[in-house]
Amino acid sequence: MLATYFSTEIPQINKTLESILADLPPSVREVAVHIVLSGGKRLRPLLLFLFASALGCKKESVYFLASAFELLHSASLLHDDILDQAQSRRKKTAAHLVFGVNKTVLAGDALFARASLLVAAQDCSQMMTRFAEVMEKTVMAEVQEIDLVRQNDVSMEEYLEVITGKTAYIIEACCEFGVLAAGGTGEQLQAAKAYGLNIGIAFQLVDDALDYSAAEDISGKPQGGDLREGKLTLPLIFYLENLTKEEKANFWEEQRKGFSKLRFSEILQDINAQNCPQRTRQAARKYLEIAAQKLEVFPSGKARQALQEIIDYIWQREK
Amino acid sequence: MLATYFSTEIPQINKTLESILADLPPSVREVAVHIVLSGGKRLRPLLLFLFASALGCKKESVYFLASAFELLHSASLLHDDILDQAQSRRKKTAAHLVFGVNKTVLAGDALFARASLLVAAQDCSQMMTRFAEVMEKTVMAEVQEIDLVRQNDVSMEEYLEVITGKTAYIIEACCEFGVLAAGGTGEQLQAAKAYGLNIGIAFQLVDDALDYSAAEDISGKPQGGDLREGKLTLPLIFYLENLTKEEKANFWEEQRKGFSKLRFSEILQDINAQNCPQRTRQAARKYLEIAAQKLEVFPSGKARQALQEIIDYIWQREK
Repeated sequence: MLATYFSTEIPQINKTLESILADLPPSVREVAVHIVLSGGKRLRPLLLFLFASALGCKKESVYFLASAFELLHSASLLHDDILDQAQSRRKKTAAHLVFGVNKTVLAGDALFARASLLVAAQDCSQMMTRFAEVMEKTVMAEVQEIDLVRQNDVSMEEYLEVITGKTAYIIEACCEFGVLAAGGTGEQLQAAKAYGLNIGIAFQLVDDALDYSAAEDISGKPQGGDLREGKLTLPLIFYLENLTKEEKANFWEEQRKGFSKLRFSEILQDINAQNCPQRTRQAARKYLEIAAQKLEVFPSGKARQALQEIIDYIWQREK
Repeated sequence: MLATYFSTEIPQINKTLESILADLPPSVREVAVHIVLSGGKRLRPLLLFLFASALGCKKESVYFLASAFELLHSASLLHDDILDQAQSRRKKTAAHLVFGVNKTVLAGDALFARASLLVAAQDCSQMMTRFAEVMEKTVMAEVQEIDLVRQNDVSMEEYLEVITGKTAYIIEACCEFGVLAAGGTGEQLQAAKAYGLNIGIAFQLVDDALDYSAAEDISGKPQGGDLREGKLTLPLIFYLENLTKEEKANFWEEQRKGFSKLRFSEILQDINAQNCPQRTRQAARKYLEIAAQKLEVFPSGKARQALQEIIDYIWQREK
């Protein structure tokens, strides 16, 4: 069922996105096109569409609302990639390296503004408030992450807090907005939010596992990129737990200097041998189970089935 | 009358801003405090307050709405100063040089989001739409300015377009939102917008004139900063008009290499001797005259008198 939606709805969402971007002035548009039309998974707009659809809402405006979240997501990627000094994104050179930091900061700002405009056009103050909240929470999580990077010890709880902020809140809001657009009940609204929050966390956990386990030719990202940066995601947190205090200090010293090629592949192998990525995926499972339960309050049908398949898709994701 | 408002309302606006900033996480807060509580003129929130006041609106929420515009303005200054590689702002070191580019980008994003939240709290979709529009227009004008910097020839029309976008639209919206908060008539709304747009343009013209004519100890900015950067504001546009093609080419060559100390003060003197800053101020006058007419549809009283005094203040500004 998900495949059907992928083949019918994603093109419609892309068409809407293209029409929105066509409206921007040229120098912002080229940056926006680079990030937005670079083959993202469109998970966020699809979720919004599916929840609206599960409740029988077929309004044309849903595509615009769904696009607002893809723009918000893209804007935060543009700024994040500057902050993280990322080299690439979705198999393409990161926008700030192609267009420069200045244009990329502005393009991010412009996409935030355009996304807000699309939401404002829905004439629903609950949506506006929530959209601004989500934007703020997403930014704050990035701040928290930057603050954490300076520490060498991050607990699983702190890590979960960051990924909830950076990834799960936007996904939660997409599901919520689908129900809002369809005028669903309070119970459905809460269920959609819980589904979104839980798959959002699971999605990021699997993403972080894949960084260690997926080969570059499949994922489009160099394997172990997070390790090289010393980014404390769950696989690395698991790995560091088993090191002595001295080994840990050595690890951080080597990371700061830059791992030798040999040492890097040695650690990467160790992390995989200790099943750190697999254990991270296992951690994702409980969130996916909660998400699955939340679907019960929605009428059964194609859209609900697709929402179930998204859970399976996250669980099985290989890139 | 304006002095009375300055002494009673600006502290209230500052108190509101402080309470809003106190609510931010520490690492964003320090950047936000640096820019927001660094002694800006508070022209934008004051205008909003005065238009609401002129129509008898005394709602507490007006202070929050007014603060939203100061946050939007501050957010755009944070990002602009990164893009312009500005060294200082309001006699203080520019935020990105104190806190780094990363935190400053994020603090700008956070202030955009917080400003949107404050507007959303008003539960008025017209406000939300206009606020997002103003944010977008302000960003787009910055893009346009960056595109123009690459040209050595900017017409007065292009320059006016940029300053309208960068400065006047936010000021226009402040006046508009004051009337919206008070539930004024359509005629009052249009008049407030026109007043705001015209004083906004005039404000920037005087600002650009002051860059050439005001001494650093008064303005807090090095005299001729725009000249050094080759920023095509009206005084420089006037100056370049009187140069031959060859002289112009020389000017840009010297500017690119960096003016010698002697050459810099020579040109600065020439620009002042040719009355370029004074002619820029003269250009501001016609906008201020239009603005003054627009006040006629508002009930006479203290607030309207203060709005008239703002016109005089812009005209006489020395820093």
